[in-house]
Amino acid sequence: MLHGPEPLAHIRRYTFVLLEALAPRLAAAKFQLAFFEALGPEGMALLWELASASRVMGLPVIFDGKRGDIGSTAEAYARAYLEAFPGSALTVNPYLGLDALKPFFQAASRTGGGVFVLAKTSNPGSGFIQDLPVEGRPLYLYLAEALEREGEGYREGTWSRVGMVVGATYPEAVARVRERAPHAPLLLPGVGAQGGKPLKGEGLLLAASRALYYPGGRPDLKAALEAAEALLKALVE
Amino acid sequence: MLHGPEPLAHIRRYTFVLLEALAPRLAAAKFQLAFFEALGPEGMALLWELASASRVMGLPVIFDGKRGDIGSTAEAYARAYLEAFPGSALTVNPYLGLDALKPFFQAASRTGGGVFVLAKTSNPGSGFIQDLPVEGRPLYLYLAEALEREGEGYREGTWSRVGMVVGATYPEAVARVRERAPHAPLLLPGVGAQGGKPLKGEGLLLAASRALYYPGGRPDLKAALEAAEALLKALVE
Repeated sequence: MLHGPEPLAHIRRYTFVLLEALAPRLAAAKFQLAFFEALGPEGMALLWELASASRVMGLPVIFDGKRGDIGSTAEAYARAYLEAFPGSALTVNPYLGLDALKPFFQAASRTGGGVFVLAKTSNPGSGFIQDLPVEGRPLYLYLAEALEREGEGYREGTWSRVGMVVGATYPEAVARVRERAPHAPLLLPGVGAQGGKPLKGEGLLLAASRALYYPGGRPDLKAALEAAEALLKALVE
Repeated sequence: MLHGPEPLAHIRRYTFVLLEALAPRLAAAKFQLAFFEALGPEGMALLWELASASRVMGLPVIFDGKRGDIGSTAEAYARAYLEAFPGSALTVNPYLGLDALKPFFQAASRTGGGVFVLAKTSNPGSGFIQDLPVEGRPLYLYLAEALEREGEGYREGTWSRVGMVVGATYPEAVARVRERAPHAPLLLPGVGAQGGKPLKGEGLLLAASRALYYPGGRPDLKAALEAAEALLKALVE
């Protein structure tokens, strides 16, 4: 991520230009918190600036932080993102259990935002815990069924504020989760750089992070716009 | 967490005084990242300041962030904490699998730090995923066995850089994890405010966060020192 003598200034400038150029073609801006944290406190200040700018551009924000902790601490994470930016979403990790997720659901409900719970992640080794058999189906489906039930209390029309993350690299998992959780918006990372194909369907939010942000492994505005057009074309064909 | 007209200044002053007073009685300072993130970018600047101060006082730092993401992003989290503060430790979440944990282990090895992987957490609902049966034992023990094997490559003498988090609220889980993972340092949160008792044993790191930081639900230096003395006394009796 670090290029040139002033990495923060470079990232700030490039990301602003890219956001403005891509905004009409995006459903939301997903910020990967790790890369801002890796830049230290100034990186977090940049995250806040970019999240605010996204909202001015009419782009909903997804904070991709995969946070998760016991109740009182989960509330602090909810304050840090869902309450600081009403109408935004946060990705969270289910390993601590449903009681630890509840503060996130409640905060999303209060603030008009959403939560995406990790179900089946895009990485090659995601099966280590997520595919363990639980009464005849993989753990991620056991989780998806429980979250569909929990999410019932947070529905606004068709869709619940309780969504899930399912890697686009596992299209069969996307289909199985959709079947068990018909009211959960699904965030699908891994499109592009990780080899996932764009999938069509209602309530599917495709995330092509590296493919759009650093196409070919470097900042390239023209290539990013072309990559966005190609992905959108694949979706309407 | 917010008190008075200048919450950040209050927290900064109280935490500095408390750290200085408690330092001779502590093995490490564990910072709960959520509460700094909830204060916005200035909160993260305060975290860096306090982490630096802890090291000046000779206190190793544990960043309690329960982070976890796929490989390239896990590397960014490792840069943000383990590489920014060599010799420190970070708590991480295992839901994404062993491939997603490896960048943390490698960073800890490079920087002389450590990693504590969530095994059995202290909250009442932690069993939802962590107690699921996996070939005859709970999932957290299946994980502990795998981490003991992985941790073999990161041992320095008796102890591995790959440790685990086991709630002091589940003393039988602490005993079972210790049996399966004899080389893993165990971080035991939940002592005090959550009802966990101080447990004795080699390689056990007791975390009494709320009981020491906000005894009785408010900042009280005298009560914090008394609570620390009482906990230490319980350990030597």
